Amino acid sequence: MAVITLISDLGHKDFYVASVKAAIYAQAPDAAIVDISHQVTPFDIYEAAFLLRSVWKQFPIGSVHVIGINPELTSEQSHLVIQYMGHYFIGADNGVFGQLFDEIVEDVFEIELPQGNDWVFPMKGVFATSAAHLSKGGNPEILGRRAKGYTSTMKQLPTIEQDQIIGKVIHIDHYGNVYTSITQTVFEQERKGRSYSIVLNRSRWNIKKISRYYHDVVEGERLAMWASNGHLMIALHGGVSGHGNGAADLFGLEKGNAIRVEFYGNSNS
Amino acid sequence: MAVITLISDLGHKDFYVASVKAAIYAQAPDAAIVDISHQVTPFDIYEAAFLLRSVWKQFPIGSVHVIGINPELTSEQSHLVIQYMGHYFIGADNGVFGQLFDEIVEDVFEIELPQGNDWVFPMKGVFATSAAHLSKGGNPEILGRRAKGYTSTMKQLPTIEQDQIIGKVIHIDHYGNVYTSITQTVFEQERKGRSYSIVLNRSRWNIKKISRYYHDVVEGERLAMWASNGHLMIALHGGVSGHGNGAADLFGLEKGNAIRVEFYGNSNS
Amino acid sequence: MAVITLISDLGHKDFYVASVKAAIYAQAPDAAIVDISHQVTPFDIYEAAFLLRSVWKQFPIGSVHVIGINPELTSEQSHLVIQYMGHYFIGADNGVFGQLFDEIVEDVFEIELPQGNDWVFPMKGVFATSAAHLSKGGNPEILGRRAKGYTSTMKQLPTIEQDQIIGKVIHIDHYGNVYTSITQTVFEQERKGRSYSIVLNRSRWNIKKISRYYHDVVEGERLAMWASNGHLMIALHGGVSGHGNGAADLFGLEKGNAIRVEFYGNSNS
Repeated sequence: MAVITLISDLGHKDFYVASVKAAIYAQAPDAAIVDISHQVTPFDIYEAAFLLRSVWKQFPIGSVHVIGINPELTSEQSHLVIQYMGHYFIGADNGVFGQLFDEIVEDVFEIELPQGNDWVFPMKGVFATSAAHLSKGGNPEILGRRAKGYTSTMKQLPTIEQDQIIGKVIHIDHYGNVYTSITQTVFEQERKGRSYSIVLNRSRWNIKKISRYYHDVVEGERLAMWASNGHLMIALHGGVSGHGNGAADLFGLEKGNAIRVEFYGNSNS
Repeated sequence: MAVITLISDLGHKDFYVASVKAAIYAQAPDAAIVDISHQVTPFDIYEAAFLLRSVWKQFPIGSVHVIGINPELTSEQSHLVIQYMGHYFIGADNGVFGQLFDEIVEDVFEIELPQGNDWVFPMKGVFATSAAHLSKGGNPEILGRRAKGYTSTMKQLPTIEQDQIIGKVIHIDHYGNVYTSITQTVFEQERKGRSYSIVLNRSRWNIKKISRYYHDVVEGERLAMWASNGHLMIALHGGVSGHGNGAADLFGLEKGNAIRVEFYGNSNS
Repeated sequence: MAVITLISDLGHKDFYVASVKAAIYAQAPDAAIVDISHQVTPFDIYEAAFLLRSVWKQFPIGSVHVIGINPELTSEQSHLVIQYMGHYFIGADNGVFGQLFDEIVEDVFEIELPQGNDWVFPMKGVFATSAAHLSKGGNPEILGRRAKGYTSTMKQLPTIEQDQIIGKVIHIDHYGNVYTSITQTVFEQERKGRSYSIVLNRSRWNIKKISRYYHDVVEGERLAMWASNGHLMIALHGGVSGHGNGAADLFGLEKGNAIRVEFYGNSNS
């Protein structure tokens, strides 16, 4: 029985997440359901995509990922099932899929199941039904017809210049750690053996080394590291958000702020 | 193996919910446990009942629902197992059951298991033991003796007058959406083909249409709709609680405030 | 298939907990994973140990408990698997194990698995791999070599004097209830039939009786009781933290504050 993951902005206070799980268990009693997060900033498809991108590949092949953000069916926005690398993704075609994959994905199906009474809550309705079906090994073609694709949306990719990469802050985590749009892959490709300086929004704060561990610097000191999802992260050893000393607070960094990596010295290529 | 659901005011910070799950797994290792919510306002049996009413029927037949609100055993308040429509409900007879069912339920059993060391935490004690027993197909009569009934409590039903239904705010959700005590069933029964106006607490705010989708109105606009549990809900398209623009904030609505549906024009009956 | 429990300071907002669960499911598809808490105060090994101590024995024999607090591997801090009373404990040797057990535990193994790409997130890396292995009945000796022990840390034990026990506040729960370091075992041992008075930080507040139930006192009244983990707890009947009337707020009690039990009258020994 495949894992079904849920990501949404439904919160934990109401009956909403339980409704989704009830609908899944009613149709797939042996489902293994994993909550990715239900605390996505309401309606934020970019944050949902960032979180899901960071984790979906780690789930077993065959897993089904249900995305409950802005899920309404409208004349411009269909409900899709996408099959990619042995995983399934279910959600509304509201731009979230355009953020999720690095290449064009072709196995796209438009859900054509009757909505029943759940048109205001498709995550409990057609998404749960589709997820239950797929988790039991069902064929996606039964859920609807092949579609041409999904809505593409601008990716928050860094700008590459000769001597610098200009990225931005794309997520601030629970500890106040700052995730940037700069990935290790892009960094290594552009660095070409040169020295570098990571420049935060104010030029007097910069970091000249990417650490492997938090404890590579003393407690209370800033550092840069590759986060577990491959993104460049600015952190504070022992920093905690909300206590006035997480990295985001200390450096005054917010989502959308620029973070640059400047290269200097001779390139080896 | 039946689903066991949990609803309580235990929160997520402490070891309490884990204690309940440990006790269940120790007695029913294959249990599928689903959290409805552990963020019920402390001691609020009305909120717990509202949440559980909104979701229990969606779980598979045979599911066991454990209610951990004001659970102490006292001389006036026994511990009950109630069997209804193929589901089991376990909790203290503190009035919550009177809120939960639309008709008088007759299969009521008073739990007579020894409390052991868990008298201060019956959800971990006799409730978990009873839930494990029932989830494995056990007979409720083994848990205690048949009881005459449960404590009835005043339901928050709307007042029906000739030209209006007077309901009130009974829940405000995570997005700031406002649930009223007016259900679609009552509305359809009283409307008799007439036009209507939904009047919020201040008369200048009213809504003349019940929308099917959020996107039936432009973003930022107010709307009324039937929530997934059949209750009339006042919402804001794209509104988010805490950002100063959820429906509850914007209309200054709090639990207990009146919401009226006024009918006008000729009735068709 | 054994239960795997998780305790950490990872929070619920990010993809972190889901990453850990993904890694476990990828290696033990039938795992039953239970969250103890992911809201431990960041980096607080004492709070994590208090919560885990309060609950682990209730899980079935064979359960595996994963501790994700300050988990980095350093030259001073190894990764350990500890086997105790039929349970397994996995975490970094950062002092948390010294808080967890009442006696010296001898079955200690140092994890020697390759860290792969997960050195910044061992809970997703070697901890998840070790937990999956142990949950399937695997031998801990395969994970690494026997180690001499773990770092011992000062326990927050109460001070015993002839006529009093001096404890302190070690946890404040979601309701504002105040847990002290004084356990029922120590109290019974020292009491010797004498009368007692529980003195909160300000001498005018004291409690002369340990109640069995909340409802032993009227609503709004303070009480002392033995919490489900055996610790002396100061509570308020119907008190709720954050509404200005939880016990901690009302008595101005914070973690670390002294709570004394004074004995008077003749001892029976």
